Amino acid sequence: MVRTFFDDTIAAPATVPGTGAITVIRVSGPEALRVVGSCLKLTSKSIESLPGYSICYGTIGDENGEVVDEVLASVFRAPHSYTGEDSVEISCHASSYVASEILRLLCGAGARMASPGEFTRRAFVNGKMDLAQAEAVADVISSSSSASLRVAMNQLRGGYSSELRSIRSRLVELTSLLELELDFSEEDVEFADRSRLSSLLDEVIGHVSSLASSFRLGNALRNGVPIAIVGAPNSGKSTLLNSLLGDDRAIVSDVPGTTRDTVEETLVVDGILFRFIDTAGLRSSSDEVERIGIERSYKKLSEASVVLALLDCTAPEEENETLISDIVSRVDFSIQKLVVLLNKVDIFGANINVILLNNEVSFSDSSVVKLYISAKTGFGLDSLKKELVSSQKDLSSDFDNVVVTNARHFEALNSAASALRKVKDSLSSGLTPDLIAEDLREALHYLGTITGEVTPDEVLGEIFGRFCIGK
Amino acid sequence: MVRTFFDDTIAAPATVPGTGAITVIRVSGPEALRVVGSCLKLTSKSIESLPGYSICYGTIGDENGEVVDEVLASVFRAPHSYTGEDSVEISCHASSYVASEILRLLCGAGARMASPGEFTRRAFVNGKMDLAQAEAVADVISSSSSASLRVAMNQLRGGYSSELRSIRSRLVELTSLLELELDFSEEDVEFADRSRLSSLLDEVIGHVSSLASSFRLGNALRNGVPIAIVGAPNSGKSTLLNSLLGDDRAIVSDVPGTTRDTVEETLVVDGILFRFIDTAGLRSSSDEVERIGIERSYKKLSEASVVLALLDCTAPEEENETLISDIVSRVDFSIQKLVVLLNKVDIFGANINVILLNNEVSFSDSSVVKLYISAKTGFGLDSLKKELVSSQKDLSSDFDNVVVTNARHFEALNSAASALRKVKDSLSSGLTPDLIAEDLREALHYLGTITGEVTPDEVLGEIFGRFCIGK
Repeated sequence: MVRTFFDDTIAAPATVPGTGAITVIRVSGPEALRVVGSCLKLTSKSIESLPGYSICYGTIGDENGEVVDEVLASVFRAPHSYTGEDSVEISCHASSYVASEILRLLCGAGARMASPGEFTRRAFVNGKMDLAQAEAVADVISSSSSASLRVAMNQLRGGYSSELRSIRSRLVELTSLLELELDFSEEDVEFADRSRLSSLLDEVIGHVSSLASSFRLGNALRNGVPIAIVGAPNSGKSTLLNSLLGDDRAIVSDVPGTTRDTVEETLVVDGILFRFIDTAGLRSSSDEVERIGIERSYKKLSEASVVLALLDCTAPEEENETLISDIVSRVDFSIQKLVVLLNKVDIFGANINVILLNNEVSFSDSSVVKLYISAKTGFGLDSLKKELVSSQKDLSSDFDNVVVTNARHFEALNSAASALRKVKDSLSSGLTPDLIAEDLREALHYLGTITGEVTPDEVLGEIFGRFCIGK
Repeated sequence: MVRTFFDDTIAAPATVPGTGAITVIRVSGPEALRVVGSCLKLTSKSIESLPGYSICYGTIGDENGEVVDEVLASVFRAPHSYTGEDSVEISCHASSYVASEILRLLCGAGARMASPGEFTRRAFVNGKMDLAQAEAVADVISSSSSASLRVAMNQLRGGYSSELRSIRSRLVELTSLLELELDFSEEDVEFADRSRLSSLLDEVIGHVSSLASSFRLGNALRNGVPIAIVGAPNSGKSTLLNSLLGDDRAIVSDVPGTTRDTVEETLVVDGILFRFIDTAGLRSSSDEVERIGIERSYKKLSEASVVLALLDCTAPEEENETLISDIVSRVDFSIQKLVVLLNKVDIFGANINVILLNNEVSFSDSSVVKLYISAKTGFGLDSLKKELVSSQKDLSSDFDNVVVTNARHFEALNSAASALRKVKDSLSSGLTPDLIAEDLREALHYLGTITGEVTPDEVLGEIFGRFCIGK
């Protein structure tokens, strides 16, 4: 008998009843096999006699022999199950009536309905996965591009957790060095080599900060790289958006779950999710309402990873120049990329190559990319897509490294980093080891909240409460 | 190696990806294990070495070792699977992106996407179930009350098919008796005892007709017993409907899939699904538009199993009498039930019992039930529900017998019955055995279309095309 931490047995559908061909109902807990066994009639033996990882076929029915459904039941034995407990997965016909009848029978036999995320919470509490892995389950389910899936899958498979473990073990080493000193502090001896401590600390701070800074990529991977399209009114912003999404729009909308709360359009190119943010046209205006709209456009510009500045190449040159210098002044080139798009080149027809040659504008910042496009005909859009993908390449080379995608982890890492910086200051200013150890413990605490070692119950409740029932 | 009828391997999600906690992807066909095996990495052995009815845990990934998901795969070996073929059910995380990646890998390894109902069609062609059972699969999925589930489950489990087999075997017996006569027909001898033939035939006709007539119940079970609420304007029809549905409305709408194309309201009482049809108020009117509405009310009245005639007991007695005699004249008491509801009794307050005693109206037809109710306070509605359930009791005692719920089967049974009646006429008018045998074969043919023994491909295509993908 494997010891687990819960003494009740829970049940819930793991798929949505009433849709598809089959519904899967999960049962987990010490009584899982008995509970299912009391409603499930097999041709010969009982489900309780079956080994783990085996399937049986039978009928589920009530005490009067009324058959509710013919089902398959998969048996999992503790600890070799998702939750780490004895579990059964019942695969029945996808009628919501059938599912509710089966759940009624299971609850009558001693199970209770699971609350949201309760199966995964049990997996966490029973030590099948840490908190970061549990959170990755939700990320895998909501992943909508190969990049976001890759990061979530790495986190689910423990890559992230092992990275954190290595940081923690170095911090523990630091702490023990300091504590050694603490034990002998009355003798006024410095056991630990302060410069060794300091370099160890620098290494850990560097590691924690680089994890924290991967959140910019992680957030982009998870929610899409934010791309702002800015330009004068009628420069073709909507046409560009429609052309970019074009046939690919179907690819995105084919995939349920990719729609976000906002009305922003998303597009997956080369496995990277891009999120396009249309903005109000920029122009000097005294109209109060229009000014507010333009301020909003500037704000969206500042939040984007890539700014697409759309110019109408048939517009007067001085207008474009005013516009572009306005945009350039608002781009933070250390973290943002600017792509200038000269639109409507289709009007030059066959002369397009001549025009392109004669139209060399240069920018002070060499990182600015300039592309000639026609949003209307689609000319140049492939180059634009390539440019978007390559703008993320510097970041995306990190794919196989650990990437932080979770805002909660980002905050914990930042808090840990700032506690560690305090440790470093204290070290250099020669504070006593007991004060330094305090800050080290604080850093360890923040890191521990990520994997769930020291996460308070209400935080756990909030995390698992966001899961669906049956997960 | 078990021989099955298809040489390609199909794959499809059996649950809707992107909803719930897990998605199940079905793979079936001679190459199912090889196809899954080529994308699935287990810790030790290969999935192809596993016995049927066992589960393995592994990672699905592409040739570059990129992991798409961690999955459970359930192995089924021909003929012990749903389709009768080698099959694998892959249980992955419920991300539609993950599901589409896994399907892409499976198709890359030699599977193809299944068309709607193709798994069940294979089960039918491979002899795992007959056509009536296959059709019951869809009925089980769409069942929304215990009665409709019971009937569908009986059909799925072969109860209906064995009934048809017994009819067919008696017809075959009849045919062979006639054919014996046919073989010796030149000798002008009557071998078969015509009276024995005739009584055998009567028995079969009775059986076929009773099956056909169970369709009225079957249709009611499947789509709900149609209940028309008729009455004068302002007699409280909408209030009655709302009170009846009251708290129970939630029970119905909790169950996805119960909504029908029409806006009619449904209610499950004691496991029976009732379908309430509100109608326009009845009154003599010269207004053309109102006349059309009233004609429609009469039509709905004629289609209902139970007619609820709603009278306002505060209205002038003669008005109610005119109305009720109009309704009575339109009810077909041989197949319909009339319940007269005297509404608004709440206005009598404490005097209600006196009023009830003094208000004995009698109807010529003793089957008419009269109830005093208050749609507003809910008074008498429990009695009304009991009345509705008991109105279906005569029929529903047949629950455990076979009930025809499928319009296609109903037509086939009617056609078989009319062919058999022709046989009977021919027998009594002394026709030659070869002509009689012709009609017998026709009856056998119609019965065969139900279980799929002689069902043409286009009919099969139509039946399975209505299934969802993955079923």
